[in-house]
Order: sequence, then C-alpha cells, then structure tokens
Amino acid sequence: MIGVFDSGIGGLTVVRALMQEIPSYTIAYFGDTARTPYGSKSRQTVIQYALEDSEFLMKQGAKIIVIACNTASSAATEILMENFPLPIFEVISPAVELAVQSSKRLRIGVIGTRATIASGIYEKKIREIAPRAKVYSVPCPLLVPLVEEGWLNKSETRMIVKKYLHPLKEKQIDTLILGCTHYPILKDIIQHKIGKRVTLIDSSLAVANKIKNFLRTHPAINTTMIKDSAAKFFVSDVTPQFEKTAQALLKKQIRLESIRL
Amino acid sequence: MIGVFDSGIGGLTVVRALMQEIPSYTIAYFGDTARTPYGSKSRQTVIQYALEDSEFLMKQGAKIIVIACNTASSAATEILMENFPLPIFEVISPAVELAVQSSKRLRIGVIGTRATIASGIYEKKIREIAPRAKVYSVPCPLLVPLVEEGWLNKSETRMIVKKYLHPLKEKQIDTLILGCTHYPILKDIIQHKIGKRVTLIDSSLAVANKIKNFLRTHPAINTTMIKDSAAKFFVSDVTPQFEKTAQALLKKQIRLESIRL
Repeated sequence: MIGVFDSGIGGLTVVRALMQEIPSYTIAYFGDTARTPYGSKSRQTVIQYALEDSEFLMKQGAKIIVIACNTASSAATEILMENFPLPIFEVISPAVELAVQSSKRLRIGVIGTRATIASGIYEKKIREIAPRAKVYSVPCPLLVPLVEEGWLNKSETRMIVKKYLHPLKEKQIDTLILGCTHYPILKDIIQHKIGKRVTLIDSSLAVANKIKNFLRTHPAINTTMIKDSAAKFFVSDVTPQFEKTAQALLKKQIRLESIRL
Repeated sequence: MIGVFDSGIGGLTVVRALMQEIPSYTIAYFGDTARTPYGSKSRQTVIQYALEDSEFLMKQGAKIIVIACNTASSAATEILMENFPLPIFEVISPAVELAVQSSKRLRIGVIGTRATIASGIYEKKIREIAPRAKVYSVPCPLLVPLVEEGWLNKSETRMIVKKYLHPLKEKQIDTLILGCTHYPILKDIIQHKIGKRVTLIDSSLAVANKIKNFLRTHPAINTTMIKDSAAKFFVSDVTPQFEKTAQALLKKQIRLESIRL
C-alpha cells in the first residue's frame, strides 16, 4: 500500500498521477481537511502535522509514504526520514530534476504557497544540480483557496493568476515549476497567462514517475505491497467540497472515511 | 478577564471594539491560527475546536467568554453554554437585533462564510423577532483568505466583493449584516459596492455594546473581573501575518504567546 498525505485536496493530483502510472498498487490517502491549509502556517506546526499524518498512514499499512504537499515536503521531509523506517517520497526533488532537464536557458520560475517559497528549498535544490541556473520564486497564497472553492474558470481567478505571474513573465523564464499540488488543477489558466513557450512542470506527474522507477528497482519492497484493492480515502473533516472536487479530479465515486488524529 | 476566541485574526475586530467600549477590562484573546479557517469545516469539527478554545480561556482565568467568530457562534453556542458555567456571548444575536432595529423596509442581507450561511442561523434569528422580514444570504468564502493575505485594497478584492454582493443589490436590501468578524476590515469596499444607502451592521461593535450593558447590570460578575492589566494574546501558531495584521488593527504593539491545545 502506498500512503499519500496532503493538507486537503491538493494531493489528489498525486493520487491521480499514481493511478495513471502504476494503476495496480493500492493507495491510502489522508487529507488533513480539519487543519487545512498548511501553506500559511509555521514550519514547526507543519512538521508536527506531517508526523501525525505519516503515523496514521503507517498504521493503515503503508509501506512507502508520499508527502503530496509541497509545504510539508519543504518543512518535514528530513524529520519524517529520521522518524519512519520507510521510503519517504516528497514532491520537490522530482519536479526540480525534471525542470532542470527541460529548461534550455536555465531561467526557472517557481510558484508555491507562502511557506514553500519562504523555505527557499526550490532555489537550493535547483542550484545543487545546476549552479548557474537563475531561479525566480513567487508566493501565490490565494490560489489554494480559489481551487478549494472551485473557482476554476472565473475571471477573478484569471486576474489573480495574471498578477502573480507578471514578475515571472518579465524575467523571461522558460520553465515554471508548479510548486503546490493544487496548481495542476489551474494548469490551463497558468499556461495561458505565462505564455505557451514556457514549459510547466507538474510535480504530481514527476513524483509518480519517480515512485514507478523505485518500485521497479526495489523488488523486495515491491512484493510487500498490497495490490489491486480499491483506494482508501481518509479525511480529518468531511466537507461537501472535498467529495465534489475528488470525484471531479479522479472521475470516479470515492468513499470517504472520517478520522480524528 | 474577558476571554475572546476566534479561528484566527478576525476576532481582533471584536477586541478592538471591546477596547473602545470598555477599555478598563482585561482581555485574553485566543486565535486558533494552527487550525484556521473554521468557515469551510464541518459543524462537528467546529464544535470540537470551540470547546477546546473555551477550555483554554477558562484556565487562563476568563470570567466571561466571547465567541468572536460567526462560524463558531452558529455551530457551538448552545454546547458551550451547556458545558461552561460562565456567561457566553456570541456575535450573531447582537447583530441581528441591531439589524432589525435599523432596517426600515425589513429587507436584510447577510454575508458570511460557507458554514455560517449554511447553518441558516441568521434567517432563523431575524424571523424570531421580525417574522415579516425578508432575508437574503450569500456565502463569501474567499473574503477571509483575502483579508488574511492583506489584499485589502486590490482591484481583485473589489471585483470579488462586487460579484458576491450583486444578488443582494438586486434584492434591494436596506441593511447588510457583516456576518463574519473578518468583514469589518473590508467595510469601506463593501459599503462602496453595496451602495451608501445600505446600513452595514458590524457584529463586533454590536457584541461589545451588549457586553458593556451586561457588565453594568451584573455587578456580582463585574467585581470578579480583572481590570486594567494589559491584554494577552495567545495563538496556536505564530505567523508573521498575524502580528502584522494585529498591530495594524489595534494600533499598538502586542506580544504573542504560542500555545498548543
């Protein structure tokens, strides 16, 4: 079983990518909807939540854990690796590797929540593998609430996306990392506003491919995984928006279980 | 000591009103910033949080409790009254009474979070005292994140306010209840978009006046209250935005204490 967690619904883009790339593996998803969003909270609080979320997934039988939330990936990956004896995947490194491979002029933009951008983790990881890269980062804190509200095609959303992307357009980036698992849901608007020559990097697809390769090269872990049983979805608070968005994203009926951490 | 709680920063508008109306009373404020916002969460979760918030304030020495959050007021007032042997004030009834007094044609609009509007509590309370009133309610879930982000005077905020208020304008309301403690921060934009003939009802001022009268008429409780000591501010997560907004609202330096519930 692959355990996936996020602060709310954003991580479902990772579930969607896993279902596409490795459909036979069973997934347990936990969305911490009772404490969402993580992106405007402090590092210490995000770390505490990530520890609790992972603990829960491990108890459910997860053999690998995917941090399907950029905020938690930036704050808590190392601490989770220290605390849990399982392979831990985060959404930042796969996106960084893909961005550096795709970018011709190494002018890379990054958008994310306030917490993710403040952590500086994308700059750091990009420079580790491409020291000459120019990296331009912009926090876009209103995009998560816009997605959570389902304002996916309103003129206000388009205006706000345009405003956020304006400084990146001026910097003539050729590659843009969608540094928040909510953002692939706004992919079309973002592509339109940044221009069609800019390559968008979707971290959910990047991490799904990384996990696919990992499982292929680690047969000992691979054989311990439950396969071909239906995905399980757990949330800390059941709201009508979660069900609606989940079904729209995954194109299937899902059953939600409510748990209290 | 007056204990005041909210999901985050919105309840500071109530603190500001209390400091204006009854400046000598000591206030302890708790902002549940680690779990903010409450407005998109389920009733059961909001009730649980409100119980924990009140428990904390009582332990700090609060002699009365103010639920400075409309979502929590609509979900949890009765349960808090059953569980705590203290006078409990909520922000809904004072606003309703003031709105009914102010409205000439009894065409009253209400704006609030998704949870507050879904509860139907404003309609119910208005009809109890004015059965012939016409009540029109609109959920405005994006206003809280816009305020929390400090987008107080951006064109996108004005457009979103306009979009939300459009159906109320068509109904020719004469009074509009700001049914969320964040909204007084956007008062000028709201007044501009709904039109200057519409009376805005600010629940933070309404509840502060209610408490002032209560203390005047209940000397036995009044004498047990700590007075003239500095206000205390507790949050479950320390973020730079909280301090910034608090200082802008209250026009003074505050010291934040971080606690974990």
